[in-house]
Amino acid sequence: MPTPARDLQQLARDHLWMHFTRMGGYAAADVPIIVRGDGCYLEDANGKRYLDALAGLFSVNIGYGYGEEIGRAALEQMRELPFYTNWSYAHPKAIELAAEVASLAPGDLNRVFFVSGGSEAVESAWKLARQYYAARGEKRPPSSRRYKAIARHIAYHGTTMGALSINGIPALRTPFEPLVPEVRHVRNTNRYHRPAGESEAEFTQLLLDDLEQAIVSMGPETVCLVHMEPVQNAGGCLTPPAGYWQGVRAVCDRYDILLSADEVITGFGRLGAWFGSERYDIRPDIITSAKGLSSSYGPIGAVIATDRVMEPFLDSTSMYAHGVTFGGHPVMCAIALKNIEIMKRERIVEHVRDTQDVFRAKLETLLDLDIVGDVRGTGFFYALELVKDKEKRETFDDDECESLLRGFLSNALFDAGLICRQDDRGDPVVQISPPLVAGEREMDEIVGILGEVLAEASRLMR
Amino acid sequence: MPTPARDLQQLARDHLWMHFTRMGGYAAADVPIIVRGDGCYLEDANGKRYLDALAGLFSVNIGYGYGEEIGRAALEQMRELPFYTNWSYAHPKAIELAAEVASLAPGDLNRVFFVSGGSEAVESAWKLARQYYAARGEKRPPSSRRYKAIARHIAYHGTTMGALSINGIPALRTPFEPLVPEVRHVRNTNRYHRPAGESEAEFTQLLLDDLEQAIVSMGPETVCLVHMEPVQNAGGCLTPPAGYWQGVRAVCDRYDILLSADEVITGFGRLGAWFGSERYDIRPDIITSAKGLSSSYGPIGAVIATDRVMEPFLDSTSMYAHGVTFGGHPVMCAIALKNIEIMKRERIVEHVRDTQDVFRAKLETLLDLDIVGDVRGTGFFYALELVKDKEKRETFDDDECESLLRGFLSNALFDAGLICRQDDRGDPVVQISPPLVAGEREMDEIVGILGEVLAEASRLMR
Repeated sequence: MPTPARDLQQLARDHLWMHFTRMGGYAAADVPIIVRGDGCYLEDANGKRYLDALAGLFSVNIGYGYGEEIGRAALEQMRELPFYTNWSYAHPKAIELAAEVASLAPGDLNRVFFVSGGSEAVESAWKLARQYYAARGEKRPPSSRRYKAIARHIAYHGTTMGALSINGIPALRTPFEPLVPEVRHVRNTNRYHRPAGESEAEFTQLLLDDLEQAIVSMGPETVCLVHMEPVQNAGGCLTPPAGYWQGVRAVCDRYDILLSADEVITGFGRLGAWFGSERYDIRPDIITSAKGLSSSYGPIGAVIATDRVMEPFLDSTSMYAHGVTFGGHPVMCAIALKNIEIMKRERIVEHVRDTQDVFRAKLETLLDLDIVGDVRGTGFFYALELVKDKEKRETFDDDECESLLRGFLSNALFDAGLICRQDDRGDPVVQISPPLVAGEREMDEIVGILGEVLAEASRLMR
Repeated sequence: MPTPARDLQQLARDHLWMHFTRMGGYAAADVPIIVRGDGCYLEDANGKRYLDALAGLFSVNIGYGYGEEIGRAALEQMRELPFYTNWSYAHPKAIELAAEVASLAPGDLNRVFFVSGGSEAVESAWKLARQYYAARGEKRPPSSRRYKAIARHIAYHGTTMGALSINGIPALRTPFEPLVPEVRHVRNTNRYHRPAGESEAEFTQLLLDDLEQAIVSMGPETVCLVHMEPVQNAGGCLTPPAGYWQGVRAVCDRYDILLSADEVITGFGRLGAWFGSERYDIRPDIITSAKGLSSSYGPIGAVIATDRVMEPFLDSTSMYAHGVTFGGHPVMCAIALKNIEIMKRERIVEHVRDTQDVFRAKLETLLDLDIVGDVRGTGFFYALELVKDKEKRETFDDDECESLLRGFLSNALFDAGLICRQDDRGDPVVQISPPLVAGEREMDEIVGILGEVLAEASRLMR
């Protein structure tokens, strides 16, 4: 029997510690309780409906409407084998999913190691890179091992301590330092605040020089991993300039460093391709994935590696000395397999590819507002950058961000029934990343609500 | 349609990277594929049955026979809300599970933060401890912050980089160093190789002195966390001597350090109580849990904290700056709730409490064999230590361990249809930790097979 709503409120206040949440704020206010989902919509305990323009957390790619079908697949697997490990053992669903993921991943990204989420995937990629050079025969003293990693400023890569070290958001790292040595963060691809006269080729060269300079200054023979998202989420959908990924690949090759594409968000359709690595021809050595792999219907992630990365671990006594209990969980694999089956059957990746330009054009109408300085992104993955002065591309200061984002926008959008993210980990942005099943109706509703609320914000901040 | 067994073999070899596995070993040999489970039994792709005396990985507490019932609970939740986050939002099942876990946890361990597994739980505990002192108002420069942790030698605490740093098994850490500073490992409670004349009280005092000495030498004002299992798994079921936990709690209080009980294995019934913390009256500030919380039917873990630990985070602007996408996953919470309901209804914890002495007595008959030096543990959680010379308590050397454990025992037990663990992360042990629904029939089968195989091992190693 469901617990009554009033009791749920009290129990939530007394017992549930929510994530990245100022819990003290709920001493007086109600905890928002989401009870139901369908398509791109959510419903709270008061019966109010929301259009979820964030797809959970950039993750419910097929939307909320396939619970019956995926639930049946989970039930069937539960009847057969509700759990077993991947520690020295395999089971059919983990094997089938590994083969399926390998077939979708570009090139010879053929080897799949399962974990339970994005942070674990990033941890596993860094551990794999560290052990790869040793397994290849570079048995050097610890002081001269390859162990360092490079990521980009403001890029989010997870919260467990290894992933957090790679995370490029100082406010998330600082309270928990010291962390894992040694990560250097290089320039991201945010071009909005670059000088007006700079060409795209010049910008690309600046970024590649910055990357190479970091490698050289860290000591190239100590760096094992370059870890970056195809399109960077935090900072607001930072797409790569022309030639960027070919350049990054070339720099990694020059210094024999593994390139890892963090596709926890971009994998499984968000950019209108199964992987961002395919869309941008990144040719990574490793892909980290999670969220979209199961459309988040179950906690599962995967590290996908090329045959070249696997090769030194095929020696008879060699072993990637890593594992987690729930890696390759048979029920989660069954859920992910069914999710991929649905994505193929419903042609969801094609839908994103075919309608992304329409979506973008609709969002670009918001550029008519004074407060919207930039619309950027691709696929079903966009950000609006909010500005104080559009001509000068001048951003808001910290106090203005606090009153604009957390003071006004957050409540106003929620009241208007739209879930998206207001973020100022870089410059202030509104992030839009709906389920990949969103059609023109949902796009129009998103743009309609954003238009009204941002017009009001524009007046307020004048 | 299920993939044929031959195809599965080939797909497994080509694509599935298994955990902690020497993959090169499968160039010639078949990958073991588990296809089905019921009660305490598993079945492989060839139709061969195994008694799983390891409960997955110390984790399938209710056994493999509740897939229909738990699968139905998962399906029902999938229909309502297949996913949502705990980032600023709650949903009914996460709230209900938080309340249920709080009601089962001893004392004022009332606050529950959900994650996706054991490693993430340990990461979260350390991050929580690091931030706790800052939130309490000790805003000191980073160089003098409380950030260090203490754990025990040979204790396993997970594999993500933070958890791995706490992990007391050098062979797991070394390939991946440098890791997170700074963890010191103190003596564990293995008493088998202590001097014959030492009393239990003397042993306890030795351990507590060692702990206090470590704290003093690290600088007490820099240590935020002492993290230990109620009964340590790796090394072979190391139970605490009398007065140990009261002493550890007193030492932590003396230096104002948070005490965290790692109950990823011991939680949810394994020791014949809902938590080992209750059984040993540990009074921890934090409990980390996972595996048994859902009987591993779904990847979920929980960090449980006392009201005292929560208190500084209830300030209006304070926030535990941590989260993972899948934390509090509604379907995983529904699975865990149903698991706990089944454990209560079937009186599974009571069954362990009532039959643990019978189980132990049966296992102790194996002490008749020359090779079995010690039987230790409690609840449904035991280890046999294997010895070269029982009189002198002399252990096997590395080569002998390799030929005994991996060369002979591993294959012989598997061939005989018994899954348990042969381990030499400390001294060589065989670990027995069956589903908590095991009855006398399963106990007899375990002891019967172990008796025959270990008698053969005894002859071989003579």
